[in-house]
Amino acid sequence: MSKQLYGAGIWHFATYVDRYATDGYGPPRSVIEAIDIAGQVKDLSVVDINYPYFGGEFSKEQIKTALDRNNLSVIGITPEIYTREFAKGAFTNPDAGVRRRAHELITDAAEQVRFFGADYVKLWPGQDGWDYPFQVDHGTLWKNSLDGVGQLASENPDLKFVIEYKPREPRVHMSFDSLSRTLLGIEKIGLPNVGILLDFGHALFGGESAADSAQMAIDYGRLFGMDVNDNYRSWDDDLVAGSLHPIELFEFFYVLRKNNWEGVWQLDQFPFREDSVATANHAIDFLKAAGRGLDVLDIDALKEAQSKHDAIGALKIAQKALFSSF
Amino acid sequence: MSKQLYGAGIWHFATYVDRYATDGYGPPRSVIEAIDIAGQVKDLSVVDINYPYFGGEFSKEQIKTALDRNNLSVIGITPEIYTREFAKGAFTNPDAGVRRRAHELITDAAEQVRFFGADYVKLWPGQDGWDYPFQVDHGTLWKNSLDGVGQLASENPDLKFVIEYKPREPRVHMSFDSLSRTLLGIEKIGLPNVGILLDFGHALFGGESAADSAQMAIDYGRLFGMDVNDNYRSWDDDLVAGSLHPIELFEFFYVLRKNNWEGVWQLDQFPFREDSVATANHAIDFLKAAGRGLDVLDIDALKEAQSKHDAIGALKIAQKALFSSF
Amino acid sequence: MSKQLYGAGIWHFATYVDRYATDGYGPPRSVIEAIDIAGQVKDLSVVDINYPYFGGEFSKEQIKTALDRNNLSVIGITPEIYTREFAKGAFTNPDAGVRRRAHELITDAAEQVRFFGADYVKLWPGQDGWDYPFQVDHGTLWKNSLDGVGQLASENPDLKFVIEYKPREPRVHMSFDSLSRTLLGIEKIGLPNVGILLDFGHALFGGESAADSAQMAIDYGRLFGMDVNDNYRSWDDDLVAGSLHPIELFEFFYVLRKNNWEGVWQLDQFPFREDSVATANHAIDFLKAAGRGLDVLDIDALKEAQSKHDAIGALKIAQKALFSSF
Amino acid sequence: MSKQLYGAGIWHFATYVDRYATDGYGPPRSVIEAIDIAGQVKDLSVVDINYPYFGGEFSKEQIKTALDRNNLSVIGITPEIYTREFAKGAFTNPDAGVRRRAHELITDAAEQVRFFGADYVKLWPGQDGWDYPFQVDHGTLWKNSLDGVGQLASENPDLKFVIEYKPREPRVHMSFDSLSRTLLGIEKIGLPNVGILLDFGHALFGGESAADSAQMAIDYGRLFGMDVNDNYRSWDDDLVAGSLHPIELFEFFYVLRKNNWEGVWQLDQFPFREDSVATANHAIDFLKAAGRGLDVLDIDALKEAQSKHDAIGALKIAQKALFSSF
Repeated sequence: MSKQLYGAGIWHFATYVDRYATDGYGPPRSVIEAIDIAGQVKDLSVVDINYPYFGGEFSKEQIKTALDRNNLSVIGITPEIYTREFAKGAFTNPDAGVRRRAHELITDAAEQVRFFGADYVKLWPGQDGWDYPFQVDHGTLWKNSLDGVGQLASENPDLKFVIEYKPREPRVHMSFDSLSRTLLGIEKIGLPNVGILLDFGHALFGGESAADSAQMAIDYGRLFGMDVNDNYRSWDDDLVAGSLHPIELFEFFYVLRKNNWEGVWQLDQFPFREDSVATANHAIDFLKAAGRGLDVLDIDALKEAQSKHDAIGALKIAQKALFSSF
Repeated sequence: MSKQLYGAGIWHFATYVDRYATDGYGPPRSVIEAIDIAGQVKDLSVVDINYPYFGGEFSKEQIKTALDRNNLSVIGITPEIYTREFAKGAFTNPDAGVRRRAHELITDAAEQVRFFGADYVKLWPGQDGWDYPFQVDHGTLWKNSLDGVGQLASENPDLKFVIEYKPREPRVHMSFDSLSRTLLGIEKIGLPNVGILLDFGHALFGGESAADSAQMAIDYGRLFGMDVNDNYRSWDDDLVAGSLHPIELFEFFYVLRKNNWEGVWQLDQFPFREDSVATANHAIDFLKAAGRGLDVLDIDALKEAQSKHDAIGALKIAQKALFSSF
Repeated sequence: MSKQLYGAGIWHFATYVDRYATDGYGPPRSVIEAIDIAGQVKDLSVVDINYPYFGGEFSKEQIKTALDRNNLSVIGITPEIYTREFAKGAFTNPDAGVRRRAHELITDAAEQVRFFGADYVKLWPGQDGWDYPFQVDHGTLWKNSLDGVGQLASENPDLKFVIEYKPREPRVHMSFDSLSRTLLGIEKIGLPNVGILLDFGHALFGGESAADSAQMAIDYGRLFGMDVNDNYRSWDDDLVAGSLHPIELFEFFYVLRKNNWEGVWQLDQFPFREDSVATANHAIDFLKAAGRGLDVLDIDALKEAQSKHDAIGALKIAQKALFSSF
Repeated sequence: MSKQLYGAGIWHFATYVDRYATDGYGPPRSVIEAIDIAGQVKDLSVVDINYPYFGGEFSKEQIKTALDRNNLSVIGITPEIYTREFAKGAFTNPDAGVRRRAHELITDAAEQVRFFGADYVKLWPGQDGWDYPFQVDHGTLWKNSLDGVGQLASENPDLKFVIEYKPREPRVHMSFDSLSRTLLGIEKIGLPNVGILLDFGHALFGGESAADSAQMAIDYGRLFGMDVNDNYRSWDDDLVAGSLHPIELFEFFYVLRKNNWEGVWQLDQFPFREDSVATANHAIDFLKAAGRGLDVLDIDALKEAQSKHDAIGALKIAQKALFSSF
């Protein structure tokens, strides 16, 4: 096993607005500033970057310079298909012109992926879905979701596209709402370069076991990426990883290790009111402890307990391994 | 379009226990008594019957006699694969002997389906799943789920098997937890005689739009049955249909009608503290009003609103049609 | 009974940002523009206005001119104690200077209330609370909440202060999270001029029955205001009133009427992607239908059913009254 | 500080039924058998016992003999006011005769408390509440709740009565649904011998922070008892304590210690499919680790972090103390 790499969405180091604090939880930061802050995190190797680059007019070369000076590289590019223009959807917008514009934006993002030698274009269609009963024709909506992704994947066979599903927010109900639904769609698209980015918190929010979802995605050969955080199971709070549900997060990592899945462990946290470097460091400390926990986990005993569905026995083994690794 | 038929799970007319009222919400009733009560409902044509027959030793001929005198026929048989023996799972039980016993019980149930000329064997694997992180090997669990159903379907090609998914209860997390997951599994099984029974309340409980789920199941050719009820979205309360979420229920019926899905509209309600005949009658009155609502729905205007994702416009049309039909 | 008046938060007619659509769901609008849009709603009499006035530098006289030309008056003023400065709380901020600044801002808002002859200062302490376990000293936090409100109420005995509780958002957990908690706090403060503004959607979100909450607030003499909207019970979606839960909303109005509570029926909706005038008109149409429904409700039969806890009987009466009034 | 005592509801060692596994998750056990099983748990000192005694006709002397041989004593008696007779409520039943019968049963239970020298009569009015909108008159329901409890408390001034609140189940909505609501009611009753039994899982289920709820109950002088378990936040799963939410449970214990609350740490777990002794032992092992964690917690540093609402800093301190104590 190679050394575990850690990553983060670059937005982890931005500031945020919401519908109440419309003046933001801090002064705006450009992507360059965010990269320089990310560079202060102890063990960060890669970042996922929003596109267009936020906070000014920056060339990809300028981004690269900033990354280089911070020893960071790019794992993925996230086209912003959830801003004003796409408020009623990107792939599923009722206006064909807007759907086309989303296509163009993502195609531009694909160019950035090539430039940076990144792993994938990340699709997060947060505005694609519905709010009310009777608002949409469900068949059409889903067809447009798949057509939109499928066209991109077939036009860019040299690149990977990952879909990050979430039950909801900002749309009240997102089209790609769950692991299973997204897998269904990907199988229907039928192309090898479309996969899933599994966000631990989104799984939790959707009532999934992230460990189970990871196993399923891996079994379909579609787990292309992942990120972690935590929440209270009823919203995408994007809190610091390990803070609320350490054992479930540990099981998620266990399934990855068990299947020899060797991708980057990424953070998708929104430290609205916290110091972003301290928050990232704290999460990575947890991840490292979890990694050590996996090293000392008594796998044979665990498998024996699991073969009997012995919950208490299995828990005991898992708790011991994780907690003793702090 | 033929006349709409109405049905109910025969348990609608039983009494219940739970972990607190262990002496039951009323004196126990046999299936024969339940059938005679069902016969008092105004417009009930078919019932779904648990197997083994509850409340005594009854032959299928005795059941038939009771049904005949109440002008009822059988739509499906539900083998009880969620009782004590199956507390750790039917298809996914860690004990191969128990898995075999589940297979036998369902095979017996299949015989009843043939005898009654019913539509399907209903599989509701409420104990198949897990309670705790680390308790099970997720890959094995899912494989056993599919193997169990697949074997039955391939051994009984003359019959239909429907899977009724639900997020949870009694198991803390059920394997067949959602529409999408169940469809994924059914596609993997790959047999024509496995489909879905979509319970409106289970969809609601799972954060699905039942209308959207119905469209998806129909698009895959797998919507073999349905039933309705209502709940507060966070548990399978099995309350009377239409009581809390009339517009969402109406949209569900709209999608069925739109796709010319012509099956029975069934009730899956648990009137713990209510009169079961009054509860069934009230639900069927709602269903009839919804049917009349579909007759007067301004489809063209609705489609026009939906083509623009115009939520308020679409709602106005739907509310008018439904409410004016009471 | 006097003629029912309708109102709305002026933000209903603004545009919004969130953490994804940081460029907003539409071009920014000033409060003056919002007032002019509000004036287009068919039956709106009063508005609740955020303070400071958004979108520019406006004097209260300018606001008044805009209101006058639209035949609107002010029911309340909502000081913005949830913006950047107050991200870690207004009343409960760890920094005493920020707590003082919140006090000053609300004191200024009180002046506006006097100028407009409005009913109340509305306190919505959306940032007061916590995100993580161990983050705060709970006793101190609650004490600061009550001290902050109590000081204002005692300094301004000529005015009413209403607290609008909500379970969460933007803070992961709000201090004033529920009807009961807020009542507990108000009783502890012990002043006559502190009451509750009951938001139907917040009650729903918190798992309360808004009807029950209204009865409780009235029994304590603390129901000083209300507003309505709808949501999927797990978040404050601020959807159009009556769209998802018409019967529960009708029961809420029933309890108000039953207790001769004669305040304004207000809207607190966020039409992110909808036309705000159409959304307001649609909601008010629902409210009017609900009002007509109350006029024809068979109160004696309802009370008889309630005296037996006869759910089906009571529902039948309520559904008939409401749906027939459309 | 005296040595920490551990306790459990005696039902922890019974078997269960639910609406699906109507034949139970194991063969029925009498209370005597349950006591003998409880005696096998390593560090159990006290039990809470349902009344009437389940599984046969047992005198209190027989119960005492069984307890004595297992070195157990009684902390509380829980009258079963949630069985068939009370399906529509105990204190709030629409039938005055049933309300009287509840009063008699609880009065009998009070006698058992005196006999055993126990701490309290535990009231868990799980059937008191409602299922549907419009079903009940909310004012009457609440009044009956308070009258019922108040009469008992005033008739038995030598005893303590504790109310265990829960959002729901078996009733769809329980009258005593939350910490705040129950405190409101207790303050209205106004007697010194009515308090709260705070169940960690019920708080979690209700979206409360159990730590915050404990602080509030203590501040009102009403925290008379507590018990712990775990769940997925959306239902009262009664899983083994510490399995899912260790940090939140640790914070709960921290608040108890901080306030010098020295009662018994009790278990309220339902090991449907697990060995009940192993489940209890595992929970108590966690509780002991938590106790050791409190011993090593850096209180000064924690208070410093809390004074700034420094979430990451506080978490780091808490995680270190808890996890290093395993």
